[in-house]
Order: sequence, then structure tokens, then C-alpha cells
Amino acid sequence: MTGIRRLAQHLDISIGTVSRALNGRPDVNEETRKRVLEAAAELGYVPNQSGRSLRQGTTNIIGFMMQTGSEITGQGDTFFMSVFDGVQTVFARHHLDLVALLCSSEEDPDDYLRRVVARGFADGLILSATQRYDPRFEFLAKRKIPFVTLGRSLTDVGQPWLDLDFEGMAQVSIDRLVAKGHRRIAVTRPHDDINLGYLFVDQSAKALAAHGLTLDPDLIFSSKPNEAGGYHVAQQLLANKDRPTAILLVNETIAIGFYRGLSEAGLKPGRDIAVIGRQSPQAHFLSPSLTGFTLSRRDLGIALAEALLATMPAFRHFYPEAALRKIWQEHLVEGESDAFILPPR
Amino acid sequence: MTGIRRLAQHLDISIGTVSRALNGRPDVNEETRKRVLEAAAELGYVPNQSGRSLRQGTTNIIGFMMQTGSEITGQGDTFFMSVFDGVQTVFARHHLDLVALLCSSEEDPDDYLRRVVARGFADGLILSATQRYDPRFEFLAKRKIPFVTLGRSLTDVGQPWLDLDFEGMAQVSIDRLVAKGHRRIAVTRPHDDINLGYLFVDQSAKALAAHGLTLDPDLIFSSKPNEAGGYHVAQQLLANKDRPTAILLVNETIAIGFYRGLSEAGLKPGRDIAVIGRQSPQAHFLSPSLTGFTLSRRDLGIALAEALLATMPAFRHFYPEAALRKIWQEHLVEGESDAFILPPR
Repeated sequence: MTGIRRLAQHLDISIGTVSRALNGRPDVNEETRKRVLEAAAELGYVPNQSGRSLRQGTTNIIGFMMQTGSEITGQGDTFFMSVFDGVQTVFARHHLDLVALLCSSEEDPDDYLRRVVARGFADGLILSATQRYDPRFEFLAKRKIPFVTLGRSLTDVGQPWLDLDFEGMAQVSIDRLVAKGHRRIAVTRPHDDINLGYLFVDQSAKALAAHGLTLDPDLIFSSKPNEAGGYHVAQQLLANKDRPTAILLVNETIAIGFYRGLSEAGLKPGRDIAVIGRQSPQAHFLSPSLTGFTLSRRDLGIALAEALLATMPAFRHFYPEAALRKIWQEHLVEGESDAFILPPR
Repeated sequence: MTGIRRLAQHLDISIGTVSRALNGRPDVNEETRKRVLEAAAELGYVPNQSGRSLRQGTTNIIGFMMQTGSEITGQGDTFFMSVFDGVQTVFARHHLDLVALLCSSEEDPDDYLRRVVARGFADGLILSATQRYDPRFEFLAKRKIPFVTLGRSLTDVGQPWLDLDFEGMAQVSIDRLVAKGHRRIAVTRPHDDINLGYLFVDQSAKALAAHGLTLDPDLIFSSKPNEAGGYHVAQQLLANKDRPTAILLVNETIAIGFYRGLSEAGLKPGRDIAVIGRQSPQAHFLSPSLTGFTLSRRDLGIALAEALLATMPAFRHFYPEAALRKIWQEHLVEGESDAFILPPR
């Protein structure tokens, strides 16, 4: 851990100048400021927390608000823990601790957030599970509480956000399936009002339209984001009279249950129906292997943390280049689950 | 939400008497106290928090300390989220919020806990990943901070704990496999110094000894508690010159990777090797189906929360009957993974 003294020695500048540069004072020339910040980042400089806390009354805790509850337990699982790893990597540099704020699915997220804020134990917040319209954004903005969201919303208060490229996933998947001869393609969407469902379904419809195809409303399967949800999607699909030849799975955790549902009916992904989903530590072990999108969740966590800190006065000078809003690209890993090509009609 | 007024009306007793009964004052007769507590539990009475906070200076937050980090992400996943559901069910009755305290695997848990306590933002703590010797217990006991542990340890400060019945799992599994003709049985254990590994391996050895068998040290496979760990166990097993005919998997999350490792070598659980593991939402979808132990994680969470509150002065009267120390039984679900019977030698 590098302190200000060692930083000043390294740069051969006085401690006072280094301090002024780090605190963004105007009486330091731009070139010096840049040198100090670069060296601080390079050497892993962290401010002396005890002094800073006393001066600023901070708690040095950042809360990551996420939904829990039996309905969505699967989702929380596989995704967030790896994101936390990345977030903690950044926070550790500044002696900030990450706590997960677990909002039960039986509770109103807006009430929960109000209580968190009233207790005042976090310096900043990361919000997930952003809704189509999300009152939490305005609540925090009004109180000038720094926050970043993992997910977009039609509500926009100018806060930083990162989000996965749900439109890109829909576009790439539809183009790929249409090229393989598929015409009747199903999609899944989350059962609730989370924003990503709208992005994914809307873009799927647009991508199909570009090929002169339509998204049949009977082929939009609503699903809880867990294994049981995927199993239920398989049952809905099998019950459909004019069965689709392909399906896109928007949630990671539903692939395992979906495979099981198909298997019980004697159907095999990649032979009887094309499946494109999202990779996860669990899906990695599916057979036939899943064609699906992947991302580094750890890197996403790092970017989230940096976007948040870039908006907080005490840390902003460490992250002058942080992306404040970014759609996070995912990469398609080809598996066997969409291997077959349909004969031309 | 029932307040004290409605509770008094329901019981047809004065508010003052109800209040004295709830606060454990001696000037209420035992029968009345019992009636009040029963009605409070039945009607879901919660104390008026704003008053209580001011009087007692409490935060109304309970922290659940757990390990995170890429090495153990699998473990955190599948187990804890469902436990949280149960914990929250209890805390919601008292307007207590649960936060997950995420201790990175790169950080010393003792240092982390010291920081959490210094910040003083939690009224009580739940500790998991208890180590063979765990200095956290003494640290908290010395400071009179209420806590409960999910897991035992050789360190004991008299705190409440709940733990899974790792000895029972080992005993039942060994007896079952020996009855099916197995003599050469492997076990897994976590790669670190977590207490459960010792319990499981020791009891496996004892159970084998009771049948005149020994646990071959070469058949104790150390494994990180995630999918990759399970895959690695399969590789170690396959490399063993005198391959075991059966294996016990102590961690939930390793079953999926273990199956994959076997499958790549053309081996099938229940045909080529007997496998007994632990059920999980993911393992539920394995094929051949896993013979494994299951428990209600939600009920475990409820019991954990009640054991903690039973030691906290503000809540103790709600939980006069809470189990303060309990080994949580698991139930064996028979699957296909240990189906075959070995011919007598």
C-alpha cells in the first residue's frame, strides 16, 4: 500500500504539491497533476482513510443492491458473485468495503432503498435489476447520493450505467438462426418488469422484421430466471401446436432446466431444436454444449466500480478515463445446441 | 404489521401489561407473559422501531459474513442465496435488514471482521465458512457482539451455532456403499482449512473402520468448491492406478464438473462408479440423477436467524424456544448415480 509520502518521493515532488494534485486543487499545473495521478494509479496509492473519514464523515462502504427471494435465487447466484469479485478488486485499492444489500422479492425495492438511505451507512450505491421505469434513480439523485446502475431504464437522471448488450445478443442470434434456415423462432423474457426483457424482445422483433419475418406473440415465453423457469419454458414450447424450430434464452440460469424439459420429451438441442442462450459456470457443463453469449463478469464488476468512483468527489481523480455509460459487448461461443441447418422450403 | 395496541386489544389486556411482558419485566405473571408472547408471534407483532432505535442506538442491520472470490464463487452461489431467503423471513418480522458482508478470498477474514466491527453498522452478525480454529469467535465474544455461526469449529466461546450433519452424511453414505459391495471408496474434502472437511473425512474413516475397511489417503481428493474443482477430482480419480469404485462428494457445486470429467472419459455415474453427493438446484438436473443429501436451506436460514435473535436482549423474548445449537439433519434422495451393486468377491 503506497502512502502519499512514498508517492512524493517517487515523483520527487513535495508532499504538499502531491496532496493538492490528488485533491484536485486549482493551484497545481495540469502536467504535474497528470504525473501525480498516473503515478498514484501505477503505485497503488490509497489515501489515508482514518484522516479522510474524520474530515468527510464517510463510511467507506458501498452497497450493491440486489434482489433475493426464492423466485430469483437462481439469477442472483450465478451472475452476481463473479461481478462482486471485480467490484471488490477496485474497492480494495481505496479501502472501501462492498456490502450486498439484499432486497427480498416480497418487498418494494423503493421502500427498501429509502430505508438504506435513511440509515446512511453507505457512501455510494450500485443498483441492479433496473426496471422499465425505476423510481429509485430519482430518489437517489434528489439526495445527491452517488450511484451507478447495472442496467438501463426509461428513467434517466444522468447517472452512470453499464448494461449488457441485450440488443446485440438478439440481433446476432436472429441473424444466425435465419441464416441456418429458421423461420419460426421463439424468445424468452423475464416474468417481471425488468428493463432488459423489453430490450431483448423489441430487438428480436426488429431483427426478424429485417428478414421479412414476424415474432409470433405465442412464441414469447415469460419465465422466472431460475432452473424451474427454464423447465417451464420447455413445457410451454412443447405444448405449442406449431412448434418453433429455434429459441433464444435471455437468462443464464434457465438453460439447465430447459435442457431437462426437452430431454424428458426425447428432444435434443441442436438436433430437434436450435437453442442459443448465455454461458454460465453451470451451462458450461451442459451436453450438447450450449451456443451462447459470454462476458467477463469480473471485468464488468471492475468497470461498474470505476464508473461509480468516477462520480464521487473523493475518488474521481483516480478515474478520469472511466466509461460512465457503456453497453457491454458479449461474445458468442459456438456450441452444438444450434448446429443443424434446416432444409430450404 | 401488528402494533402493541392491536396486540393488547386482541388479548384484552392493558397496553402497559403487554409492554412489560414483551420487555421481560419481572412484574408480569408467567402465564400472562406466555399468552402475550404467543399472541405476538401469531399476529406477527413487531416493535415500533423508531422508538427502539433512539433508545438503544441500534442500527437494525444484521450482517451475514461470507467469503467471495473467484476460487469459491461456485460455493457462495448455490447455497447462500436460499439461506438468505429464510433469514430475511425472520428479520422482516422485526424490521431488521440483512446485508451480506463480502469478504474477498484474498483478504484475511479476521482483518475484515475487525473493520466491520470498527464501523459499527451491524447489531449482530452471522458468520459462515467457520475454520478449524476460528479467531473471529473470540474477537466478537470479547466485544459482546451478538453472533451465530453457520458451522462449528474447535474454537468455542459458547455462541449459538447451526451446522449441517456432515458426520451423518459420511456415515449413511459409507454404510450404503459398503452394503452394495464397495470396498474402495474415495472422498472429497475442501482445499482450505474450513472445519467441515475435517468432520467429513474423519467420520468417513470411522465408518469405514467399523466395516473393517480403511480410508486410503490417496483417495482423499482435495477440491475447490466449484465446478472446476469437481472436474479436477474426476481427473485425479481417473489417474489413480487402483481406481475406487465409489466416491462421496462433500460440496454441492462439484457434482456438475465431476460428471463432466467422467463423461469425457466415457464413464457413467451409477454404471462405472457409484457417486453420492449433495443435492442443489443445479444438481437436480444432472443425468443420471444424483443420489444425494438435501435440506431446506430456507428453513436453515430461519433457524439461524432465530438462534441469533434468541441471544439478543431486544428480541430474545420472541424466541424462548429457539434451538441455540443444532446439527441440521439432511435427507438422502436416492438417484441413479449409485445404483449398481458390486459382485461379492
